[in-house]
Amino acid sequence: SFLKAADALHYADLAEIYEGLNDEERDFFTDHIDMEQFAEVITDLPDTLVEETMERLDTDEQREILDQVSDDDRVDLLQDVSDDARERLLELVEPDDIEVTKSLLKYGEHTAGGRMTTHFGSIQADMSVKQALQHLRQESDETESFARVYVVDDKDKLCGFVRFRDLAFNAWETKIADIMRPVKRYILASSDQEEAAQMVSKYDLFVLPVVDEQNRILGIITHDDAVEIMEEESTEDMEKMAGFTGEGSEESYLNTPTMTHFRRRFPWLFGLAILAIASGVVMIKFEGVLSSLFILSLFLPMVVAAGGNTGGQASTMVIRAMALGELDQGSIMRVAWKELRLGLMLGSLLGLGMALITVTVVPMFYSEMPAEIGFTKFAIAVALALAIQITSSTLVGSLLPIGARAMKIDPAVIAAPAITTIVDVSGMVIYFFVAKALLGL
Amino acid sequence: SFLKAADALHYADLAEIYEGLNDEERDFFTDHIDMEQFAEVITDLPDTLVEETMERLDTDEQREILDQVSDDDRVDLLQDVSDDARERLLELVEPDDIEVTKSLLKYGEHTAGGRMTTHFGSIQADMSVKQALQHLRQESDETESFARVYVVDDKDKLCGFVRFRDLAFNAWETKIADIMRPVKRYILASSDQEEAAQMVSKYDLFVLPVVDEQNRILGIITHDDAVEIMEEESTEDMEKMAGFTGEGSEESYLNTPTMTHFRRRFPWLFGLAILAIASGVVMIKFEGVLSSLFILSLFLPMVVAAGGNTGGQASTMVIRAMALGELDQGSIMRVAWKELRLGLMLGSLLGLGMALITVTVVPMFYSEMPAEIGFTKFAIAVALALAIQITSSTLVGSLLPIGARAMKIDPAVIAAPAITTIVDVSGMVIYFFVAKALLGL
Ligand SMILES: [Mg+2]
Ligand SMILES: [Mg+2]
Ligand SMILES: [Mg+2]
Ligand SMILES: [Mg+2]
Ligand SMILES: [Mg+2]
Ligand SMILES: [Mg+2]
Ligand SMILES: [Mg+2]
Ligand SMILES: [Mg+2]
Ligand SMILES: [Mg+2]
Ligand SMILES: [Mg+2]
Ligand SMILES: [Mg+2]
Ligand SMILES: [Mg+2]
Ligand SMILES: [Mg+2]
Repeated sequence: SFLKAADALHYADLAEIYEGLNDEERDFFTDHIDMEQFAEVITDLPDTLVEETMERLDTDEQREILDQVSDDDRVDLLQDVSDDARERLLELVEPDDIEVTKSLLKYGEHTAGGRMTTHFGSIQADMSVKQALQHLRQESDETESFARVYVVDDKDKLCGFVRFRDLAFNAWETKIADIMRPVKRYILASSDQEEAAQMVSKYDLFVLPVVDEQNRILGIITHDDAVEIMEEESTEDMEKMAGFTGEGSEESYLNTPTMTHFRRRFPWLFGLAILAIASGVVMIKFEGVLSSLFILSLFLPMVVAAGGNTGGQASTMVIRAMALGELDQGSIMRVAWKELRLGLMLGSLLGLGMALITVTVVPMFYSEMPAEIGFTKFAIAVALALAIQITSSTLVGSLLPIGARAMKIDPAVIAAPAITTIVDVSGMVIYFFVAKALLGL
Repeated sequence: SFLKAADALHYADLAEIYEGLNDEERDFFTDHIDMEQFAEVITDLPDTLVEETMERLDTDEQREILDQVSDDDRVDLLQDVSDDARERLLELVEPDDIEVTKSLLKYGEHTAGGRMTTHFGSIQADMSVKQALQHLRQESDETESFARVYVVDDKDKLCGFVRFRDLAFNAWETKIADIMRPVKRYILASSDQEEAAQMVSKYDLFVLPVVDEQNRILGIITHDDAVEIMEEESTEDMEKMAGFTGEGSEESYLNTPTMTHFRRRFPWLFGLAILAIASGVVMIKFEGVLSSLFILSLFLPMVVAAGGNTGGQASTMVIRAMALGELDQGSIMRVAWKELRLGLMLGSLLGLGMALITVTVVPMFYSEMPAEIGFTKFAIAVALALAIQITSSTLVGSLLPIGARAMKIDPAVIAAPAITTIVDVSGMVIYFFVAKALLGL
């Protein structure tokens, strides 16, 4: 009955169920499920669960899993386990799979070569439509998609593609060379997976062929790979932008161990807390200014926080634009110019708004304003400090991620939390400095 | 020569180029490009550019564009323009396209029905393979994909699918009913596009059929739609999380007018600035505490900011998990329990670290600590306030987005900036309150 229930489910659902089980239940699951079906489930599990899952199986079962999965999934599985386990599992791979497995293992997990599947339809340019169909019929079981059938020459070099329907709707004696179309987009196996996903997305590709330096076709990246890559990369960026360290776990939020969360959240929190003490040092330094006009406190947190918010907005915009491939290193001046204007506009309008509040609302509650300062002068100081803080924070927020990328640091790391903490410090300095200078404190 | 250059380019590249042109150059572009090709370019333009682009064309050209594009792209185009323009353009739609266009226009732009294409291969269950192939050959030019050919009964109800290769590799007299497979996943036309994209992603679908309440197939959502939807939704979430209002423009960052950025950034900035004055009010209220032990300032910004950082991390995690469909309303207790433990762990460890710094480093620079307080007691107060602030902020950060969703507000709106500002205020209160109570100020 377990088998029956499992049989009715999609492997993606089974993987989700398995992820939610405890140790004992997982043992029951692996004991009762058919290995052919479990092979599909294992390829959909979060990477961190692969090794412990393989270890629940006996050697024969492991061998069957390694045989059942497709080449790219086998390689992915082997990349997900420890070096020791990989060596041991490699010995269980069938002789006719071992060569392709080892050659695919050379590509990094996050490259086009590491992601591609080798199960694609390929035919020779000098075949006839009839020969091509006969050839494909033999490969039909093993091939993910025939929507694009690639045409190669006798050296395996990519020279074109046909759609399966072109074969079906053409006369049997037609030569492939006469009906094939040119392949305009392909990617090197060593390229980053993100680049592959961006190409699939931009050009609405169904399949992207992966080639080596000699233009020989090695495999294909399919639309579902692109979807997965994009989802991973967006999650990774959001996590980095919130100050997480380390690789994102592929496990769902609730199934990720609390200790994993802890380890990924603590480092930045700690580093930023240390950095935030600098803001405190600034406060201590300006103790005289603050105590001589304590009403300055009313707008201090606001000026500081406004910088964090506007800097965070600017960095988010720029980081996302870079992730979508919109900005190259040469755009830095255009970004700076745009954000400078934005910062000035946001800063002036917000400053004006706050100045109005200062001269209209504050006098209703506060009667101790020294006569030689007065509410108008006070309002001007607040507005000026706010405008400077917002303009500089907007610039910092937009330029730091670009600078980070220039230094080969992932721009997403330099996002909201880091920028907020940095402009907290500068905001304190700006606020007290302007108050001191303008109000003569 | 312009025509030749344009002909060699993909419409996605042409759309990118067009987007970067000024008024005059766009006129030159639309004057010289072939309308058949421009029809593809227009469907790839950001929504905000569609109307002004159509207005550059004369009536005949507009009619040709509307004829050349596929049904779903025509509907998308009509949804991108103002009501007036839509009415006028609808009159230019060819008589044989008008019915399907009007019926598709009923679906909201962000629903499965609004996204689907009606160009899919469909055959009848009682056809033979030969009849099916003949039927599909006629539709071949107009059909996006034959990878899934849907089988319908005489009332257009979806009853199965075949792969094109199943037709090609089976005998001509075979009945479709004998080789068709069941369709396990489909979606209602009225469902949100995000749900469609999540299904495509989770189940690695190539095509997702869209049906009405009577289970009649209306269209298909293809993999490239899913990629586009996911990219849009991720961008939308990141922008909301950074405090942007309004619809994200589909134009690239550099091509989006600065005024559009301004309008989308200002409202939250202003609202949060007003809210941040509450922090200032707290400072004023506790003026006595602060002035009687000004060294408290040293850790004030740090305690406040740590709450924002940890609350931001928690909210990012929860918002992303919700976007990936991992959390339902029932998970709230599990989320709360997980984040409570995390908050306590992060808060205690960070508190301990700061206490150690307080007793070892601070005495080196600061000699005015009142004897009745002493550095140890001071350190305990800082650590305790920090632990409470982090724990409560973690809870707030994780639970507010869930609460927002329960109230039908997009959870991404309640992210970092809003949470940071809220826990800024609570952090001030916690810090001064703990200091006052523990240190007897
Ligand atoms: Mg894996
Ligand atoms: Mg992996
Ligand atoms: Mg792979
Ligand atoms: Mg696209
Ligand atoms: Mg694949
Ligand atoms: Mg990456
Ligand atoms: Mg990335
Ligand atoms: Mg559009
Ligand atoms: Mg649209
Ligand atoms: Mg949506
Ligand atoms: Mg998937
Ligand atoms: Mg489509
Ligand atoms: Mg959303």
